[in-house]
Formats: sequence, C-alpha cells, structure tokens
Amino acid sequence: MQTVHEPASLRAVIRGWRAEGKTVGLVPTMGNLHAGHFSLIRHARARADRVVASIFVNPTQFGPNEDFERYPRTLVQDQAGLADEGCDLLFAPEVSALYPLGPERAVKVHVPRLGEILDGASRPGHFDGVATVVCKLFNLVQPDFAVFGQKDYQQLRVIERMVADLGLTVKVMGAATVRAADGLALSSRNQYLDDRERAVAVEVSATLRQMQALMAGGHAREAVEQAAMARLVQSGFVPDYAVIRRAEDLEIPAPEADLTSLVALVAARLGTTRLIDNLPFSAA
Amino acid sequence: MQTVHEPASLRAVIRGWRAEGKTVGLVPTMGNLHAGHFSLIRHARARADRVVASIFVNPTQFGPNEDFERYPRTLVQDQAGLADEGCDLLFAPEVSALYPLGPERAVKVHVPRLGEILDGASRPGHFDGVATVVCKLFNLVQPDFAVFGQKDYQQLRVIERMVADLGLTVKVMGAATVRAADGLALSSRNQYLDDRERAVAVEVSATLRQMQALMAGGHAREAVEQAAMARLVQSGFVPDYAVIRRAEDLEIPAPEADLTSLVALVAARLGTTRLIDNLPFSAA
Repeated sequence: MQTVHEPASLRAVIRGWRAEGKTVGLVPTMGNLHAGHFSLIRHARARADRVVASIFVNPTQFGPNEDFERYPRTLVQDQAGLADEGCDLLFAPEVSALYPLGPERAVKVHVPRLGEILDGASRPGHFDGVATVVCKLFNLVQPDFAVFGQKDYQQLRVIERMVADLGLTVKVMGAATVRAADGLALSSRNQYLDDRERAVAVEVSATLRQMQALMAGGHAREAVEQAAMARLVQSGFVPDYAVIRRAEDLEIPAPEADLTSLVALVAARLGTTRLIDNLPFSAA
Repeated sequence: MQTVHEPASLRAVIRGWRAEGKTVGLVPTMGNLHAGHFSLIRHARARADRVVASIFVNPTQFGPNEDFERYPRTLVQDQAGLADEGCDLLFAPEVSALYPLGPERAVKVHVPRLGEILDGASRPGHFDGVATVVCKLFNLVQPDFAVFGQKDYQQLRVIERMVADLGLTVKVMGAATVRAADGLALSSRNQYLDDRERAVAVEVSATLRQMQALMAGGHAREAVEQAAMARLVQSGFVPDYAVIRRAEDLEIPAPEADLTSLVALVAARLGTTRLIDNLPFSAA
C-alpha cells in the first residue's frame, strides 16, 4: 500500500487508475484505526476496484476545549492495518495541505439545521468542520463512493445532505456499527476510559435498546427520553441528549407520524470522555 | 441551442458530450444578457468544444432589501442572443431545482475575510450566496473552465478562492469588462438609471481612472481614496467605498509594498441603483 501526503500526489495516482477505467471507493478517517474502521475498508474493498483511505485529524471539527491535541495519532500502526485489509492508497495530509490559509481563513461548508441540532448544538461548529473537510476530500479524490460508519449517525446524515445539496456525484454509504462483545460501539475515544468507566460505558448501548423496546411497547416518546436520561445520570454519565428522532432528518417525529423509520440517539460524558451511539429502529 | 431546466437533463447532455471527448466551458449568469455577457460566451467559445450558459437569478445572493424581485428577467430574448453567439446549451433552473429545501435550509459555502470585506460588508451574506450557487453549478456542469466578468472583481476573487480551497478542478477565468462609449461598465442594473442618472454614472469609471493616475503620480493611498469619495459625493452618489487594494486578496497594501498589482474599486449608489466598477493597475 502506497502512502501519499500531498494532494497533487493523490490526484496523480487516482488519475492513473481512472485512465485504466478503475472504480474508486474512499474511506475517510481520523486514524487510530480499530475493527470498526476496518469493516469500512472491507465494505469499500467489496465494491470498488481501488480503495483509498484518508487519515486526517481535522482541526476544524474540534471545539476549542475538545481533544484535538490529545486525539491518538498512530500512523505506522494504521498503515500496517490498512495494508492487511487490502487498502490500495493512504492519503495522510498535513493540516497545511488541506488548510493552506490556516483553519480560520478556510472556506467553510455550513449545513443549516441538520448540522445545528444535537451534536451540532453540543459541539458548535463541529459539523461545519466535518462538512468542509469531507467536501475537500471528495473533490480531491473524486471517488465513486465513500463509506462512513453509522455510529456517527448525524455525521452520515450531514454528509448525505451536503452531497445532495451541493450537487456532488459521490455516493455516500453507511456501514453498520461494530460493537464490543458487551455492546459498546467501537470508538477511538474508548481508550480514554479507565477500567471502571469502561465497565459503565455499556450502559449507553443498553439504554438505546431500552428506548427501542419502550417505543415498541407503545410508550410516549417524551417518557422514553426522560427514562433514558434518568438511567444515564443514575449510571454516572452527564448526558447531552437521549432522544428519539426521525431517521431521515433527525427532527422530532410528529405524534401521529409514521413510526417506521426512527433512530434513538445518545451523547453522554463519562468523566472527561464523551461517548455517542445510536440505534435505528421501527416502532410500527 | 437547447434549453434545459432540470439538473438531471443538464447532466445527461453533458455526459453525452464527455463520452465524445468534448471539452466544456461554463458561463454562469443571472440573465438579462448584454454585450458584456456575450463577450464571456465568445471567450468560452474560443476555448472549449461546447459552451454552457446558465441563467439563474440566485435568491441567496440578494439581501432582504435588495432588488431580487425587480431584477430583470428576459429569458426569451436571452435565448435568442445566446443562440446567435453559438452557445450550445442553456441551463435555466427554477429556484426549487437548486434549493430543494428552500434557500434558508440550503447548505452554504462561506468564504471568510475575502467574502466579508467591501461588497461583503455592504451586502452581508452576498458572497455566501455567490459561492454557494457557483459551487452547485460547478458540481452540476463539471466544466473544464468557467468564465466570469472582471467587472465583478471581488466575486471573481471569491470564486477563485472557493475553487482552490475546496479542491475543485474547474479553471476560473476572468474576462475584461465591457464598457459603453463613455466608459460606464455594462451592467443589467444600468437600466434602472433614468436619463439624468445615466449621464452622471460615467463618474464611476472616471473616478477609477483618476485614482490610478494619482497613485501613479506618487500620491498617498489614503489621500487618493478620500479624493475619490469626495468626487463621488460631489457628483450626487452615496458611495459605499472607493479604495485601492492589493489585486490578489483585496487587502490594504502595506505602504512599503510592491505596487505592481493593485486594483481600484468603487461601489456607489445613485438614487436607488447601486453601481460597482474597478480598475486593476500597476503603480510601480
């Protein structure tokens, strides 16, 4: 597997593939790869002639008090893992390669409403940063499709919206969340947890399953959300939200609405670690 | 010349051309075409196998108290003119085709600083609207190059920045401003002027030439700008600005700076009509 750091080198490799008529799949990541990321690589591998992964810890999607500096960077180990999975090319740019004028002066892509609610409210500017860097990556790689984990459910929806609204031709695919044996969604941030916190973290996915079960049992959405918040607080979390939303646009479902396409979403802090997870379901 | 209104129809025509190996040039306009626009079509015609013009009065680049409603719409006449100039395809979408969720909910492209000064300060949000709609048009048409008039100098710079920063592959070209015999830059908004105002409007370009001459004569930038503002006020304008800036990024040139690449820019209201013009020059 080849690694390139410069956009021009990336484009040269892809131009060569395109000249040979190859299809290209992209898996954007922030590195520190785990089994969840590798499942995305395999998803792409099965559907494209060539697979590009990117590793870029994107400064514009971190808030000023977030973990940009301490976010784990494990390039050599990531390269070995990607090569094992049959990834063809790794694009690992410096910040200055994607933000030549610096992050503050950079052209910004903003996704109103969908990018402003839930994690967009808890982390102001986060989805602007995500939409902006993914727009850049899509334009640089010009893949046939890109694969994202459904674990970052709102991110997936924001990217789909960005692509549709700006008229990009990349097909956006979501791949199922990979979980530990106890149900915890895999995340690079899980390694911030100490042993006691790791044992408690299982409550996030358990809460989501309980939300689904209560909705299926006919309970009112507000009551289900309140029970979920109470359970998380009881377990030692400081929850940002625990909600049932429409899967399509993450808006509050109308009481009389079709309940076939919903998603339960949780974001909660445990100590200094913020965990998110979700569970799409039908309550009809 | 064919006219299409739907993005899907546009893409189908262009896909056909690309399959034949044709190059494509794009000329984005708001319609009400005059000799300035037709010079852009000829510029594209000379450089591409196929020329696409777009006509779209873009709501997101007009402020709430601006002339979106009364902006002249002359589609039938524009079609005849484009056909005469050898344009191959006109894309004339409805607002709902480019903004399916409505203009407020649309994904937005923001160009910090360069899009916030001068006209960006006089017309808040204007360049967000410009950058957003041009990004959409570039993604829909995927032309080899696009041609814009240098009369909208800041717009040209904003679009160049957007393309470079988001990694788009479209080449952005500026074409020289077309002027009436007395020097007035052609603009669809000139038709808002009554006879008396039309006679006075020549002062805009005359002021720009005076600014160039004074700078070449070694006068201080601030003094030149003050003289220009005074002349415009004296002539009956309410000027927004009359400034000398660096051509590259429209920042204030440092006193000790290289003076080879400057631009004089004026924006001024005459009655209810806002006129802009500029003159790139070297004072070295």
